[in-house]
Amino acid sequence: MHIRIINPNTTTTFTTGLVAAATTFAATGTLVDARSPASGTPSVESHVEEAIAAIGVMEEIVKGEQDGVNAYVIACFGDTGVAAARELTNAPVVGMTEAAFFAASLVAARFSVITLPPRTRIHTERVLRETGMSERCAAVRAIDVPVLDLEDEEEAIGVAFLEAARHALDEDHAEAIVLGCAGLTNLVEPLTRELGVPVIDGVMAGLKMAEGLVMLGLGTSKRSSFAYPPAKNLTGPFSTLLKG
Amino acid sequence: MHIRIINPNTTTTFTTGLVAAATTFAATGTLVDARSPASGTPSVESHVEEAIAAIGVMEEIVKGEQDGVNAYVIACFGDTGVAAARELTNAPVVGMTEAAFFAASLVAARFSVITLPPRTRIHTERVLRETGMSERCAAVRAIDVPVLDLEDEEEAIGVAFLEAARHALDEDHAEAIVLGCAGLTNLVEPLTRELGVPVIDGVMAGLKMAEGLVMLGLGTSKRSSFAYPPAKNLTGPFSTLLKG
Amino acid sequence: MHIRIINPNTTTTFTTGLVAAATTFAATGTLVDARSPASGTPSVESHVEEAIAAIGVMEEIVKGEQDGVNAYVIACFGDTGVAAARELTNAPVVGMTEAAFFAASLVAARFSVITLPPRTRIHTERVLRETGMSERCAAVRAIDVPVLDLEDEEEAIGVAFLEAARHALDEDHAEAIVLGCAGLTNLVEPLTRELGVPVIDGVMAGLKMAEGLVMLGLGTSKRSSFAYPPAKNLTGPFSTLLKG
Amino acid sequence: MHIRIINPNTTTTFTTGLVAAATTFAATGTLVDARSPASGTPSVESHVEEAIAAIGVMEEIVKGEQDGVNAYVIACFGDTGVAAARELTNAPVVGMTEAAFFAASLVAARFSVITLPPRTRIHTERVLRETGMSERCAAVRAIDVPVLDLEDEEEAIGVAFLEAARHALDEDHAEAIVLGCAGLTNLVEPLTRELGVPVIDGVMAGLKMAEGLVMLGLGTSKRSSFAYPPAKNLTGPFSTLLKG
Amino acid sequence: MHIRIINPNTTTTFTTGLVAAATTFAATGTLVDARSPASGTPSVESHVEEAIAAIGVMEEIVKGEQDGVNAYVIACFGDTGVAAARELTNAPVVGMTEAAFFAASLVAARFSVITLPPRTRIHTERVLRETGMSERCAAVRAIDVPVLDLEDEEEAIGVAFLEAARHALDEDHAEAIVLGCAGLTNLVEPLTRELGVPVIDGVMAGLKMAEGLVMLGLGTSKRSSFAYPPAKNLTGPFSTLLKG
Amino acid sequence: MHIRIINPNTTTTFTTGLVAAATTFAATGTLVDARSPASGTPSVESHVEEAIAAIGVMEEIVKGEQDGVNAYVIACFGDTGVAAARELTNAPVVGMTEAAFFAASLVAARFSVITLPPRTRIHTERVLRETGMSERCAAVRAIDVPVLDLEDEEEAIGVAFLEAARHALDEDHAEAIVLGCAGLTNLVEPLTRELGVPVIDGVMAGLKMAEGLVMLGLGTSKRSSFAYPPAKNLTGPFSTLLKG
Repeated sequence: MHIRIINPNTTTTFTTGLVAAATTFAATGTLVDARSPASGTPSVESHVEEAIAAIGVMEEIVKGEQDGVNAYVIACFGDTGVAAARELTNAPVVGMTEAAFFAASLVAARFSVITLPPRTRIHTERVLRETGMSERCAAVRAIDVPVLDLEDEEEAIGVAFLEAARHALDEDHAEAIVLGCAGLTNLVEPLTRELGVPVIDGVMAGLKMAEGLVMLGLGTSKRSSFAYPPAKNLTGPFSTLLKG
Repeated sequence: MHIRIINPNTTTTFTTGLVAAATTFAATGTLVDARSPASGTPSVESHVEEAIAAIGVMEEIVKGEQDGVNAYVIACFGDTGVAAARELTNAPVVGMTEAAFFAASLVAARFSVITLPPRTRIHTERVLRETGMSERCAAVRAIDVPVLDLEDEEEAIGVAFLEAARHALDEDHAEAIVLGCAGLTNLVEPLTRELGVPVIDGVMAGLKMAEGLVMLGLGTSKRSSFAYPPAKNLTGPFSTLLKG
Repeated sequence: MHIRIINPNTTTTFTTGLVAAATTFAATGTLVDARSPASGTPSVESHVEEAIAAIGVMEEIVKGEQDGVNAYVIACFGDTGVAAARELTNAPVVGMTEAAFFAASLVAARFSVITLPPRTRIHTERVLRETGMSERCAAVRAIDVPVLDLEDEEEAIGVAFLEAARHALDEDHAEAIVLGCAGLTNLVEPLTRELGVPVIDGVMAGLKMAEGLVMLGLGTSKRSSFAYPPAKNLTGPFSTLLKG
Repeated sequence: MHIRIINPNTTTTFTTGLVAAATTFAATGTLVDARSPASGTPSVESHVEEAIAAIGVMEEIVKGEQDGVNAYVIACFGDTGVAAARELTNAPVVGMTEAAFFAASLVAARFSVITLPPRTRIHTERVLRETGMSERCAAVRAIDVPVLDLEDEEEAIGVAFLEAARHALDEDHAEAIVLGCAGLTNLVEPLTRELGVPVIDGVMAGLKMAEGLVMLGLGTSKRSSFAYPPAKNLTGPFSTLLKG
Repeated sequence: MHIRIINPNTTTTFTTGLVAAATTFAATGTLVDARSPASGTPSVESHVEEAIAAIGVMEEIVKGEQDGVNAYVIACFGDTGVAAARELTNAPVVGMTEAAFFAASLVAARFSVITLPPRTRIHTERVLRETGMSERCAAVRAIDVPVLDLEDEEEAIGVAFLEAARHALDEDHAEAIVLGCAGLTNLVEPLTRELGVPVIDGVMAGLKMAEGLVMLGLGTSKRSSFAYPPAKNLTGPFSTLLKG
Repeated sequence: MHIRIINPNTTTTFTTGLVAAATTFAATGTLVDARSPASGTPSVESHVEEAIAAIGVMEEIVKGEQDGVNAYVIACFGDTGVAAARELTNAPVVGMTEAAFFAASLVAARFSVITLPPRTRIHTERVLRETGMSERCAAVRAIDVPVLDLEDEEEAIGVAFLEAARHALDEDHAEAIVLGCAGLTNLVEPLTRELGVPVIDGVMAGLKMAEGLVMLGLGTSKRSSFAYPPAKNLTGPFSTLLKG
């Protein structure tokens, strides 16, 4: 089985980190690799960047289809481009956000999300609404740091997440914590130890759900909503997208 | 006052038709023009095409800012790219879909949407959910014709809409009809005459709402969710998007 | 085009103020006037007064029909009598509350309402629910002053609104402010300047939406819910209401 | 204990019928009487008539307070004037509609409402939403007859309700039937016998709930939303309403 | 009329207290008694105990049917076993929680629940959701004491409820208080006096609703959801349950 | 890794079938076994039987803890006893119903459920509501056959499911089918082939989700809602349940 993690941003150190973490959690017999778009945005912190990143996601799906990939995990909190990606393949496409919410709701009555930066709070709320998870989410808390600091400021970030998580447990009555960004797998272990509740990294949750769907023979329904897009003469930089 | 209609697809006959219709409805003193992206997709009938079209919408906003545009109307059912567009300007950006829903709910207790093709039904449902209008919508009905036939098959399309609208009034208890596609302004008058209920063209509704917001001095809030995106080194075809 | 603002209370200084403000915002060619009922209540701060004021609203619609009015704006937060008014005319009838919510949601991801006095909080919540705007509203905040003080205590009221609005931005994550009472147009400019976010006066928002609906040829649907009431022998002070 | 049923319309034969039926169901020691307004509308089938009838309801509450009434039942489907009535007394005020929904949900998983005429369907939906009962309601079905025919066409009405109820059981999966109009107590027994499911008359359900609240010492909360309205100089036909 | 209160736990002093309180509130001609299961759990503070207590509830319904009981009140916050109980009888079965919510919503715009211990908060939220009362509930507040302390620590419990209720009125804008546990009837009078708002004991509210349903001839609908369970060969300690 | 499927009913041929199917889908290194309670009900088709079966589920969890089981799958549509089971272990406990809904929503925009017999429709609706999946579910369709016929009437059942599924695709706009009962794994392949959309067996979906959670080190949160129940003196057949 070949599962591909698509990092919608262009920061390849993130991509490398994702595949390293994923390898730890993959089942025997699962090949996991990761890709990021050739061009685009180094991080996704706005609707503009989500729109840009969605193009990269689609391009990577087209490539993945050529590589015979069996399932995709989209590694961006907000599930950028997931609906479009589903149209381009009959393999399963799992967003890290939806996967995190479903996993959290299987192990806890209520969870809080800790995301960043604050302006992306409504991206999280959008996915909560789309997945039906709004009521299971006790609160969306945001940390005021840019995504790209996650690499350089790992320790400070850990402290900020821990503090936010403690507020979530005490004030929101949360019983699990969803990490609201990709690239935070390293935080899972220390936060779990400190907090004593499940801490969920959506990329890894998505990996396991994607694996499970493949094992069950389940792929994206091609009936209506996610059918392959109609043939059409596209122009400009995206003109090859519907030829894949 | 300068209002620009952005047609997210590349079919310029649509664009021309939009500006012609809009000129009829604009207030004295309002300049309305319309633009479509230099490249992209000739119509938007899938999530993939929505993602492609969103790029064009953003590019047109960047150009519009250089032209001193006072408000934008996005003329694609599904409100493609509206959230991203809002980040790139402090002028109002009005989606035709949300405008249609709000206008319909001001003149009727319940409305039905008639959209096309059937695979886009969930695009409509997404905007209904995002705008809070799900309960005001009696039903989403879909006609099984491709968007690009709207031009060539005008008469047949009119018949299909009329038939669907009659079902909506009789079976859904709808009291108004929302036309679920741009470029259908010509259908408003005959359908209204036949049906005897309000028939809403979202592009024109959006035009009037955009005009109203400008007159009131209201523009997109730049606090948090729709603030200008952070400065960042984008690469590839999008690299100029955040320089506008 | 003739638009009439109906002030459901009997305080004529409010009525005068409304028409003055509206004149500023009306389009070229729009005649705006305002009326208040001959008798009733000097302000609307309870369900009892809402019920009384609704009678006045209906009486004014009956008169408006005789005057050939093209659209009505109901200038009372809570949209007193709007459903009944819609039955008495085929012109558009726009409530200031629904107009404020729709305008706010076109320029901001989330808004807070600042209303008064506190006992009317559930009136606002009722309109939020009826319009589908509950999720777009971050919070309903109430100031503890009676409506009639708005005239005499203008400065103190301004301070109170500013303070409440700051809490809304900081604590509710609101990105726009809806003024939860008619007669506050003068607050829009100073609050906008201080807060840096859109501040919405529903009466003016309603005026522009009413103008837009008329320009589009849209009026109240007479199918079912808002059809003219059935002919019937009414008795007492309301006996002429269904003869208009 | 003194319970008063307020019939918001002026058709006194309805009022007489209500008190006759109520006497059968009242507990030992409960005095039940019924009143209708001195003037107003002979039936309530529109928002206009709801607004008119609400005035009558308030007037009757004012009189009821002078008579030492312990609880009120408002006998109009749509619960006309209930919120206003609650402000004028600290006794319980129970709407027949909310009472019917609560009773139905205590004996069945799902109920359908059969109401009349069709234009009032959204009145029912409004109360469903206000009471939180929308999900427990399988469907709102409407019979196309005017309210005043209920008296003259008793047999035909019974047939129409039976037919609609059978559709509700078979097509909506309803497990109980709510009669969507006052004055239908006589239908309960024959419909129950024919259908074999609970058939609920909201007036009688409201009577029992009102009795229960009085026995428990529970009255309308005077904190905030339903506090007595502020003292104020009303004018015109309503000028005595806030003096009661 | 014979109404039986079923206390799902095995603490007979609770049972005795319930019947004493109920006798005060029952109508003339109503015989009220109370039962608790022969074995099970002394209090219900977890899902495990809810599941155990549900068995006892069913056993008591089977016995009640033999005794000719006319209606049942289930006296456990969370309405343990109510759906199963409804299948075993055609008499009404009223849960104290749903009864409390309905009663509260008839006398107040919004209520808060004060329950215990904190881990049962989601049990309350489940019933709020099932009954449609989530929006009428301002907040669920929890006191950190075990249920069995209610007997021994009556004074301290009263103080804790009073403090929580004051927070509910001031911070949640609650206008009534629902006591989130059985066996607290004695708190109603002092809390009402201190707080000046309705305080609702669900067991007594359930008693009055059960009485009302019986008087109206309404019983559990046997159509589909709550039909008698199919005949089947059960084994083990429950093997007699479907023979009653 | 040791995963145990708990069949809440006592029909051991079901249990045997479940483990056979599960073995096919389990990852390398996963040991799957299945258990059913020593006594109880041969199938679960009512709330009464759900309550009985929940006891068996808890007993099996207690045994599972002694056997060092790493995760549990509860194989009954309706997720009988899942909340209680979660309190008795810190391993993950996955209900087949929630797993089916989550899997379906990862591969399709909308799914329909086909369950049996009709009286259990509200059990499905309860889980839809609890999991937030109500809006993703196009319809709940029910087949009128008893659960125990699934064994003897395999062919007829297959035909009935196929027919219901076709209605779901055509009339509900469903894009995937959830099989609303355990023991139907054999239907997945033929239905998928006939229908061309994903067909989901919740037990197998639950197995893969349970496996995934274990691989990620995620277990049931013991904070508050699903903490181990408090120590307490239980009596009767349950007296050993809290000693496990």
